[in-house]
Amino acid sequence: MSSLLVVGSVAIDSIKTPFGERGRCLGGSATHFSVSASFLTDVAVVAVIGEDFTAQDEAVFHERRVDTSGLIRIKGGKTFFWAGEYGFDLNTAHTLDTQLNVFADFKPTLSDEHKNAPYLFLGNIQPTLQREVREQSNAKFVAMDTMNLWIDTTRDELAKTIKVVDALIINDAETRQLTGEHNLMKAAKSVLSMGPKMLLVKRGEYGAAFFTKDSYFAIPAYPLEDVFDPTGAGDSFAGGFMGYLSQADQIDDATIRRAIVYGSIMASFTVEQFSCDRLRKLQPNEVLARLDQFQDFTQFDLDPGMGIVVHEELAPGAV
Amino acid sequence: MSSLLVVGSVAIDSIKTPFGERGRCLGGSATHFSVSASFLTDVAVVAVIGEDFTAQDEAVFHERRVDTSGLIRIKGGKTFFWAGEYGFDLNTAHTLDTQLNVFADFKPTLSDEHKNAPYLFLGNIQPTLQREVREQSNAKFVAMDTMNLWIDTTRDELAKTIKVVDALIINDAETRQLTGEHNLMKAAKSVLSMGPKMLLVKRGEYGAAFFTKDSYFAIPAYPLEDVFDPTGAGDSFAGGFMGYLSQADQIDDATIRRAIVYGSIMASFTVEQFSCDRLRKLQPNEVLARLDQFQDFTQFDLDPGMGIVVHEELAPGAV
Repeated sequence: MSSLLVVGSVAIDSIKTPFGERGRCLGGSATHFSVSASFLTDVAVVAVIGEDFTAQDEAVFHERRVDTSGLIRIKGGKTFFWAGEYGFDLNTAHTLDTQLNVFADFKPTLSDEHKNAPYLFLGNIQPTLQREVREQSNAKFVAMDTMNLWIDTTRDELAKTIKVVDALIINDAETRQLTGEHNLMKAAKSVLSMGPKMLLVKRGEYGAAFFTKDSYFAIPAYPLEDVFDPTGAGDSFAGGFMGYLSQADQIDDATIRRAIVYGSIMASFTVEQFSCDRLRKLQPNEVLARLDQFQDFTQFDLDPGMGIVVHEELAPGAV
Repeated sequence: MSSLLVVGSVAIDSIKTPFGERGRCLGGSATHFSVSASFLTDVAVVAVIGEDFTAQDEAVFHERRVDTSGLIRIKGGKTFFWAGEYGFDLNTAHTLDTQLNVFADFKPTLSDEHKNAPYLFLGNIQPTLQREVREQSNAKFVAMDTMNLWIDTTRDELAKTIKVVDALIINDAETRQLTGEHNLMKAAKSVLSMGPKMLLVKRGEYGAAFFTKDSYFAIPAYPLEDVFDPTGAGDSFAGGFMGYLSQADQIDDATIRRAIVYGSIMASFTVEQFSCDRLRKLQPNEVLARLDQFQDFTQFDLDPGMGIVVHEELAPGAV
């Protein structure tokens, strides 16, 4: 039985970046999520594909031993297609074309085995569908993603879904859009008041920030000299995060912090090449090496035993 | 004798933010720098003021025991004046008015005592002047700031100055503008090839990143729910950084990392109110409390002894 289930999109992408383009490649939230999570746990994917989805497209799931029993192929249908382009800042994807195809009628139904996966990730799909999946599941920990489209068009449904998950994993622009608050701390408070116990904010090249009602954690991103294609960064981040939690099978502050670091490192690989290309070649020792480096890049010790003082005699009123 | 010298501007500012406005208040790079550094070390300021600079304007330097023997008052002159406005994102100041006044003829000459201050910060002034100050000084560690104006208009002079300092402390937009590289890692390499041993990049609400030829360090920012006025954030960051180095009187990686955290915490107070208002009231125990919190907000331990593994059996080629 899989420890982690993801429901989301499996897509064919067409991507342009300042560094190159790829006319047809494997994409989708559930794809990037599951391939990333597979480095840490047993993961199953629930999604829909068309007849055009080739054995080559599917190969990565098998290479990574992702359970594809929930990958439904629609006869005569075409796989969800997305074409996008990035500018030099690589922060925002400009959608050139979206063809929902078989995804338009996607009504995920979980198998009994999938219902019992203890960790569940609701990838970025219509919020009502996300909630229906959540209701079918016996998972003990549920996280979800969403996007600007659903915040704009289905806010009420989205709010109902956010209410019934443990963690919301979105980017900073979405956090601001969802709450109408520019300040991230205020926005986070507002999100938490909607119901979830946790908010994990993805900040791209600036890292990630994690909020609960009474704790806060933030990390910078793993620094990269060559970001080739940011597609899938957020989903592989969520995949590393949920994959780690699922393996640890423990939800406490220290475990969550580690999970965020793992997520960040998995995303740092994903963006180095198109599609899942980098993760298909990724060796476990490369993950471990980057985790070590990340610790080195971020650690500091404020207590050097050198008697550093903040000048007490200069306290206001003391002069 | 002061341990740390700053040469820069002392100004009268007029500031509008979405949260309020202040028609006339104390500002300037040397002001924010020295007030911040004064919590950690003995600091002297070299700058020029006009006859309009009041005893009240000057009071903060005396409260903080900043050595003002290098504060030159020009008879009949007017103090450098800057008026600026911030939008809701608070990231970019829109300059409404700049009157150089006495600052136009500023030719800093260091006293013998000031020449021997072991730590020197060249605040954001014309790069030729910065270099002239650097040449007068016997400091063992010199850092400098600059701005988009000098990158645009005096690039060659700026490059000559950057070549003769130990550390450049600028924001990410300036780093990109100076090098023409969008990617920060590439931009940092390019800056280091210009001469300085260290580059410290200020990233506003996203924290700071530090680069040498063979090391990297990054921190997120101290999270604030209410950022009132970002004016002086960069200078108080540099003041905390240099103030800490000056007190520790030691330049190694661990000390520099601590100094960056101190800088970040000092800046987090500065932006909570207009001008130096917050730092004038700041108590040493508030600094220490925020340092503690910051450590808590950022620490993680990747080695939980739980036997977490990256799936070796799924290495490419192993399947």
